[in-house]
Amino acid sequence: MQRYFPILQWLPGYKCADLAADLLAAVIVTIMLIPQSLAYALLAGLPAEAGLYASILPLIAYALFGTSRTLAVGPVAVVSLMTAAVVGQIALQGSIGYLNAAILLALISGLMLLTMGLLRLGFVANFLSHPVISGFISASGLIIAASQLQHLLGVEASGHNLWELLQSLWQSRHDIHTITLALGAGSVLFLLLVRRGLKPALLRLGCPVSLADLIAKAGPIITVIGATALTAWLNLDTQGLRILGAVPAGLPALTIPHVSLALLEQLWLPALLISTIGFVESVSVAQTLAAKRRQRIDPDQELIGLGACNIASSLSGGFPVTGGFSRSVVNFDAGAATPAAGAFTAVGIALATLFLTPLIYFLPLSVLAATIMVAVLSLVDLGAIARTWRYSRHDGLALLATLLATLLTGVTSGVIIGVVLSLLLYLHRTSRPHSAIVGRVPDSEHFRNVQRHAVETDPALCILRIDEGLYFANTRFLEDRIYAQMATQKTLRHLILMCPAVNHIDASALEALEAINARLQDAGIELHLSEVKGPVTDALRNSDFLQHLSGRIFLSTYQAWKALHDSLPD
Amino acid sequence: MQRYFPILQWLPGYKCADLAADLLAAVIVTIMLIPQSLAYALLAGLPAEAGLYASILPLIAYALFGTSRTLAVGPVAVVSLMTAAVVGQIALQGSIGYLNAAILLALISGLMLLTMGLLRLGFVANFLSHPVISGFISASGLIIAASQLQHLLGVEASGHNLWELLQSLWQSRHDIHTITLALGAGSVLFLLLVRRGLKPALLRLGCPVSLADLIAKAGPIITVIGATALTAWLNLDTQGLRILGAVPAGLPALTIPHVSLALLEQLWLPALLISTIGFVESVSVAQTLAAKRRQRIDPDQELIGLGACNIASSLSGGFPVTGGFSRSVVNFDAGAATPAAGAFTAVGIALATLFLTPLIYFLPLSVLAATIMVAVLSLVDLGAIARTWRYSRHDGLALLATLLATLLTGVTSGVIIGVVLSLLLYLHRTSRPHSAIVGRVPDSEHFRNVQRHAVETDPALCILRIDEGLYFANTRFLEDRIYAQMATQKTLRHLILMCPAVNHIDASALEALEAINARLQDAGIELHLSEVKGPVTDALRNSDFLQHLSGRIFLSTYQAWKALHDSLPD
Repeated sequence: MQRYFPILQWLPGYKCADLAADLLAAVIVTIMLIPQSLAYALLAGLPAEAGLYASILPLIAYALFGTSRTLAVGPVAVVSLMTAAVVGQIALQGSIGYLNAAILLALISGLMLLTMGLLRLGFVANFLSHPVISGFISASGLIIAASQLQHLLGVEASGHNLWELLQSLWQSRHDIHTITLALGAGSVLFLLLVRRGLKPALLRLGCPVSLADLIAKAGPIITVIGATALTAWLNLDTQGLRILGAVPAGLPALTIPHVSLALLEQLWLPALLISTIGFVESVSVAQTLAAKRRQRIDPDQELIGLGACNIASSLSGGFPVTGGFSRSVVNFDAGAATPAAGAFTAVGIALATLFLTPLIYFLPLSVLAATIMVAVLSLVDLGAIARTWRYSRHDGLALLATLLATLLTGVTSGVIIGVVLSLLLYLHRTSRPHSAIVGRVPDSEHFRNVQRHAVETDPALCILRIDEGLYFANTRFLEDRIYAQMATQKTLRHLILMCPAVNHIDASALEALEAINARLQDAGIELHLSEVKGPVTDALRNSDFLQHLSGRIFLSTYQAWKALHDSLPD
Repeated sequence: MQRYFPILQWLPGYKCADLAADLLAAVIVTIMLIPQSLAYALLAGLPAEAGLYASILPLIAYALFGTSRTLAVGPVAVVSLMTAAVVGQIALQGSIGYLNAAILLALISGLMLLTMGLLRLGFVANFLSHPVISGFISASGLIIAASQLQHLLGVEASGHNLWELLQSLWQSRHDIHTITLALGAGSVLFLLLVRRGLKPALLRLGCPVSLADLIAKAGPIITVIGATALTAWLNLDTQGLRILGAVPAGLPALTIPHVSLALLEQLWLPALLISTIGFVESVSVAQTLAAKRRQRIDPDQELIGLGACNIASSLSGGFPVTGGFSRSVVNFDAGAATPAAGAFTAVGIALATLFLTPLIYFLPLSVLAATIMVAVLSLVDLGAIARTWRYSRHDGLALLATLLATLLTGVTSGVIIGVVLSLLLYLHRTSRPHSAIVGRVPDSEHFRNVQRHAVETDPALCILRIDEGLYFANTRFLEDRIYAQMATQKTLRHLILMCPAVNHIDASALEALEAINARLQDAGIELHLSEVKGPVTDALRNSDFLQHLSGRIFLSTYQAWKALHDSLPD
């Protein structure tokens, strides 16, 4: 029970001090989450209230099922962008079909996450390598920033990738609305100033680091309040400035999205990608924060927790959610002690939904766009390309390809291209493993590469060391390597495969070894193995390879050398 | 030059003895190839002459560009089946479009193989693991046998997978033609008798093994001659027995297939699969035979050779070809010394095309079907399922899934499902690598698993050994493992990662190590590495990880133990 309901682990020991800490953190996160939830609803192409709804029940669901003490779930930038990209291909923005598809997407994602969690499939997220994620997140940041430019400029634009967006913006360059741009650009400047300048200034004034951090993170809410007040005061909306308008007050009603086979066919793959990306982001944050306090999270239970969040979001009219980076850090820094902080935040947002919606009537869309743009700029890390490339060409290539594919073809195909490419590059690398013909270091029991060291060899012996597990992708290499050696070393009578770094031998490699053994035998050459690991020997015993093996298995290469070198005629 | 034209390696040293050996082998292979080429044309749904055309120019092209001395190229069962499956979805069997698509398929396959060879992409074939190939070949054998049942029974049936075929056969069960079935079933019995009974009988009579083998392999040609003579003598064709009929005499004319964008879109993926499957089969045979005589083949040049064969086949009105298993073994056993044997076989088939076509007018289709059925039964190896399963669950699952997917969904999707599944299973396995917390074997420099041995440990030290390269699929495992240890071992102050089996660290794993290092540091724990391999250390030096590392890199784990164990307060 405790495994599937982590709340049972912390609720019985809940203390007064925890309550105080959680309440304080909840107030701070609520203030941060109000503009974020509105902004990410805008980014996802949905009405503002969908963002608020996605920030109530999901937080309560996570408090029940999540294993991180400090993760703050809700709408996040990248998942909102992916939602807009997917749903925009199914229905027109603003239509009932659009809202229904977004809600259904959250439901499918939630059910997928839940199923993966119950099946303990957390490992699937591993197939997203860091370079692929890094390239994808940077590209998403750029696409999001570009998509918000239209609100900042007060024009209409659309597109699913950077190219289409920029083209569309360029075509509407003559429609730029001055007041909108002034307010938006002013907000961007103010936000950058707060982010870059306020914290150092506060620190110089003797303010503690964590407080300075929190105040600097309040930039968006200050901007939103200021700009809304200004708009209301000067009636800027009558001069063409687009504002948020009426947001229905009241708690969300229970909704069941309309389901059809056609919709399911269109949504299952995007839902899988959104779930995986969301899970990877969320688990990384949760793990970072848990490690700082020597706590633990359980990735498989996190799948269940995030699944419950998305189902809750869907049933209350919200869209896909996950754990957000900046919000969780604020929650952690504000001292949240248990997931109850999240539940209190949900109460805060619920109160805002009940009573505060009239106050945000005059919130200009360009100011919301400004908060999004400044937030996502921190996602873009182009320096990672050079850093990764310097460490490994393969990884650098995977990063660059994912970045470009995402920018040029869109978010869904970008991720798929990145994943396929990084798998192919990995297989390519392991298909030509490091290997060496080794000889004996004179008067020792050590064996080293004949090309790098002055070592003792024997024309009738060949000792080949392979530094990789043997599996289907490198069996051909192994055969080629050995047959080439056979053709070169005409006096060969014993071939010793030195296996200290062979971590596994799969069925393909086993068949290759059997074929090699038979062919060497045909040519009068014995095949021996040395330094075979325990688990590998155990597996070999389950086949009849050891009965067919023409030679022997030696514990050490030196024993093989002694037995075979001495037994040969001079 | 010699690399791209391997003929230059053997032609200058060509001797009289070689000529005699090659001529003898060519005569024997020609006799075997005539019924095979007709039968596989039938299997591919093409007119009989296409099979003959596919056995002339391709053999000459291989003699020029191939690196195996004994490989016999031409139509083979599995590739013919795949051709029928692909082309049958594009045009009606018997139409001009059908023939054109088959010829174009050979051209595209040829160009793909040639390009892959020039780019040295032979490694791509490695992604077909043995279990996938084994499952695919067995399933293909079963589908081929089922597809020939209609000719054997004298009924009409069609379908792209086993299920459709059997359903279609069942529906036409009342149309079975008695004479057709009698002749077909008689041929099957005779062929099985020759294959199983003739060789042992000849051996008992003192016949040399290789001669007995050759005579046993002559079964199909004897059956074909006998049945054709019987049909002509009794005029069985007038009683409803379907016969081959008129095959146009004369050498093939140069043909250029009609190309359209729509055709290219439909054919590129099947062409890639056919090329890869054909290449894998062919290279395996060539390598087996070359090793027996201590010769070598060059896989990248084989791609060029097989590419040239398919282009030659297409330009002379043939369909996709590759190196065949049984024919190559016969060629080898008959003593073929050089690829000239293949060129002489081409002359033999050309003569047959010029002069023998009137003689095969009365060849019954049910007898051709019988030769195919008996030939493909040797491809079906259901015992491999149990054998592979016993050695490894993962590999057994991949085999079974490919077998079932091929049987139930068809050849193209069967291969794709198999490849994707074996990649996923490989990643799943390496995503949870073998690892152990180790301790010091008392009074020694050795370290062993604490769960298996009575070893010395230290509450402030943890030595973790990972037996796998660190890459994106197992970084999460590494983090989980270490954070779990941190949470359990509250007195931990030094974590030593023991890396003797870590063959590489990719960019994802590097980032994970950096994160681990930072988090351990936050918790006051130092991270050390021991026994890091040379190439891995070199790669780490290209990043700034070593500057950030809170601990040290030790050459041996014992040095780490001495330095850290002794430095700790008691």
